[in-house]
Amino acid sequence: MWRRRTGRRPARHRPQGLALATARRALDVPDLVARAEAGEARAVARLISLVEDASPALREVMGLLAPRAGHARVVGLTGSPGVGKSTSTNALVAAYRRRGMKVGVLAVDPSSPFSGGALLGDRVRMQDHATDDGVFIRSMASRGHLGGLSWATPQALRVLSAAGCDVVLVETVGVGQAEVEIASLADTTLVLLAPGMGDGIQAAKAGILEVADVFVVNKADRDGADTVARDLRYMLSLGDRRTDDGWRVPIVKTVAAKGEGTDEVVEQIEKHGQWLVDTGRLEQRRVKRAADEVEAIALTVLRDRIGDLGGSGALATLAAQVVAGTLDPYAAADELVASLT
Amino acid sequence: MWRRRTGRRPARHRPQGLALATARRALDVPDLVARAEAGEARAVARLISLVEDASPALREVMGLLAPRAGHARVVGLTGSPGVGKSTSTNALVAAYRRRGMKVGVLAVDPSSPFSGGALLGDRVRMQDHATDDGVFIRSMASRGHLGGLSWATPQALRVLSAAGCDVVLVETVGVGQAEVEIASLADTTLVLLAPGMGDGIQAAKAGILEVADVFVVNKADRDGADTVARDLRYMLSLGDRRTDDGWRVPIVKTVAAKGEGTDEVVEQIEKHGQWLVDTGRLEQRRVKRAADEVEAIALTVLRDRIGDLGGSGALATLAAQVVAGTLDPYAAADELVASLT
Repeated sequence: MWRRRTGRRPARHRPQGLALATARRALDVPDLVARAEAGEARAVARLISLVEDASPALREVMGLLAPRAGHARVVGLTGSPGVGKSTSTNALVAAYRRRGMKVGVLAVDPSSPFSGGALLGDRVRMQDHATDDGVFIRSMASRGHLGGLSWATPQALRVLSAAGCDVVLVETVGVGQAEVEIASLADTTLVLLAPGMGDGIQAAKAGILEVADVFVVNKADRDGADTVARDLRYMLSLGDRRTDDGWRVPIVKTVAAKGEGTDEVVEQIEKHGQWLVDTGRLEQRRVKRAADEVEAIALTVLRDRIGDLGGSGALATLAAQVVAGTLDPYAAADELVASLT
Repeated sequence: MWRRRTGRRPARHRPQGLALATARRALDVPDLVARAEAGEARAVARLISLVEDASPALREVMGLLAPRAGHARVVGLTGSPGVGKSTSTNALVAAYRRRGMKVGVLAVDPSSPFSGGALLGDRVRMQDHATDDGVFIRSMASRGHLGGLSWATPQALRVLSAAGCDVVLVETVGVGQAEVEIASLADTTLVLLAPGMGDGIQAAKAGILEVADVFVVNKADRDGADTVARDLRYMLSLGDRRTDDGWRVPIVKTVAAKGEGTDEVVEQIEKHGQWLVDTGRLEQRRVKRAADEVEAIALTVLRDRIGDLGGSGALATLAAQVVAGTLDPYAAADELVASLT
């Protein structure tokens, strides 16, 4: 609904108009959410920007999104640089679209707090699916969040889910902690490998075996793909981690650039999803994920309250006593906590 | 003081004796602290182990240490692997000992949560100063702490300070975040570079310029040392960051293995220390540091309380509502916070 801006000249005639107009648009959260839920790409993008920026408006956004926030199946893709994550993501998007499903893609870069490359990445990725309104693709940095991606990603997932995505693919570089975090956010985690990268050993080292629900050996038309698959199979047989809970981690060979093997990956994702549902693990994983998220937000709320105390000088007073040696840091922390509650 | 263990056989005759004896010793915190304050190396080591393990006894330890916890001047040493940090640390220890000062060394390895290498490192380092009771040397990992080194290091500093150290050298590998954390803990931060490592460019990239109070170009007898120094000087002239607050970052050339230049490094540390005192910045830095520490402890206290709620099932109940879409994560976090307070 258009409202008259009483007493103001139209935005375009004032130099500060753009900033003001942007700020005003941010305030109409219900409208923005309604448009995102209707599948409007720009509204979805704007909501995810709010997530990236840790906007105070998120509180209202998440309140409105809650009923539809858990719809999407979340699939994580991880692996070392060069294994073909983006290509595989593209192939999976195409496969899901052929099945008539709406797909979201979150390309997450945990190494870059100010991911200037994200925009370029978006443009490159968009080429195949730019004109398809059944696909939302977004690169994401976590510049605003204290909790980093472990907090920003679930919120972005809520947005994409509420926008009607049936599947969201979360693509991340496989680098230690971040990869484990992403795995904890996904319903199903794909670990990608490729020949000629010493990945077998890398996998064993990096604990990749622990997070994989499905292994994908990409670039399977290259020499060494069979060796990678065999090494994986051997390591899986040693660990045999899923025997006790009934899921045997499959190994699928693909040539993502040609779309070869992608349908089998989709089948294995579906199979794993069904297993999660049948065993009650989907609910368990999601409750665990929500608990982590709620805890992270609660800690931020408390941190903000401490920050407010910092502004009021209470923390500085305590800290000065600690420096003077008249108070120890634990006693000071107790006083701080007591003043919060 | 020896006390009779009534009704128990001596520890050595029972298989579980050692563990029990260890636990019992851990409980006599006042005795341990008194011995550490008297400079007994084993008591100091034991207190720092409590810090590493995030022992619950720390609360009592820090209470007892508080009056003497701020005595030491804290000097951070950072730089890429191979620039000679350990050698430089050793040379500085010797220089301070010649001046009759008591020295502590904390070698911090932020990359390793379970630093198995720490012990070996200790032995290697100890060789020069093993028989000197004016030197405490300790490698430290931060395996227990949620807040990692940003929390463990200041507590270890308190211990060394209370043990009578006049100077504590905190040595850490220069890797991004950790290095910035260490710099925020030190009164004076030395950044070490060496020729032939492309360090000039590395320095500019890694924000090393921002954290250095003194630059040390080590291995100055090698080719390229002058180039490193010149590049640094040029970059400093570009940034010129300290002009506004009156401290010009000096560049000192050393050959730490031969002890060359070390006295000048000590002089520059003293000079910077005096500048910190004169400008009131020493107090400012220490209050800021204490405030961060108190805040980190307060957050952990609150996190523990949330954890207790998790155990009681309250968090799981909220999380299940979030998954069901009947509650959004912010509202759930508010309920969680409200139940804490």
